[in-house]
Amino acid sequence: MSEITKEYKNQVKELYKKSKIVLTDEELASIDYADFSLSNIEEEGLNLILYVNNNRYCAKEMVLLPNQTCPEHMHPDLENGLEGKQETFRCRWGEVFLYVEGDAPLDSDTISVSLVNGKEDYYTAGKEIHLKPGEQYTIAPKIKHWFKAGKDGAVISEFSSPSYDEFDVFTDPNIKRVIRDR
Amino acid sequence: MSEITKEYKNQVKELYKKSKIVLTDEELASIDYADFSLSNIEEEGLNLILYVNNNRYCAKEMVLLPNQTCPEHMHPDLENGLEGKQETFRCRWGEVFLYVEGDAPLDSDTISVSLVNGKEDYYTAGKEIHLKPGEQYTIAPKIKHWFKAGKDGAVISEFSSPSYDEFDVFTDPNIKRVIRDR
Repeated sequence: MSEITKEYKNQVKELYKKSKIVLTDEELASIDYADFSLSNIEEEGLNLILYVNNNRYCAKEMVLLPNQTCPEHMHPDLENGLEGKQETFRCRWGEVFLYVEGDAPLDSDTISVSLVNGKEDYYTAGKEIHLKPGEQYTIAPKIKHWFKAGKDGAVISEFSSPSYDEFDVFTDPNIKRVIRDR
Repeated sequence: MSEITKEYKNQVKELYKKSKIVLTDEELASIDYADFSLSNIEEEGLNLILYVNNNRYCAKEMVLLPNQTCPEHMHPDLENGLEGKQETFRCRWGEVFLYVEGDAPLDSDTISVSLVNGKEDYYTAGKEIHLKPGEQYTIAPKIKHWFKAGKDGAVISEFSSPSYDEFDVFTDPNIKRVIRDR
């Protein structure tokens, strides 16, 4: 994992501030700046504050910087019998383009955003959901998905079943998620 | 259930607005103004917007008007084997005084708020948790709890396991919860 710069961290904090969501100093000091070991965080990354993650439910507050993409992944059923993670994204500020597996394959010519250069093979889900503040969408377990912020970035609440991020399956084989969830 | 006045509804909407949480027109039109059939909503009541409630998790945005109290209740285990509801309250705006069952009984002389006049018998949980914006607390299943807003009211996010409000057990036998959850 390459070094996350202070400037990058300040940009993330600035977006939380713009959303008017009140966060404690402790929360701001413990933001998870996830680069998925791709060393390309300004393009592919995700920033999040974990509010709660127990064996019943999970809630996070996520930030994407302008045009930043969270790489495609899915939440599988677990070997211990637990069903894969189900999650609801609610846009709080800015806008986000969410892509989930649909009937048709991803068509990079017709979706509203551009794919990360050179990573086209690692994005396959093509059903577009455009979320503006106050809008939300629920992603079923085991459905591949990825999402990209609009030009101003986005603040997104996630309500979900418990997070076991260590079991997430990413389409890009180069991804290694460093886990901070538990 | 007595009529909820337009003025009351506007006060609730005003608090959501003050919190800067973006809500859709549809959500604002479908606020659940719960008076628990006590016909005393300005003192005992709860106002909420249900974001999502499925068989995995639930999320709500709640409002209490100034000094309004949500009556004491608990979430029992269900007969079908489901564990009682666990919930995390996160204060977003204003302040709320939360009371949960603790080692000592409720002492109305030492807690920070006053009990609803004439309803003293229906409030028994006495462990006080004072939540300001950005602060949160998780209530275990089957633990009696009630909560009262401070002088400016409160906006509180609830993250939880699924809501089955029809099975909630209230301490006040006069309470009948009209269910809007599913």
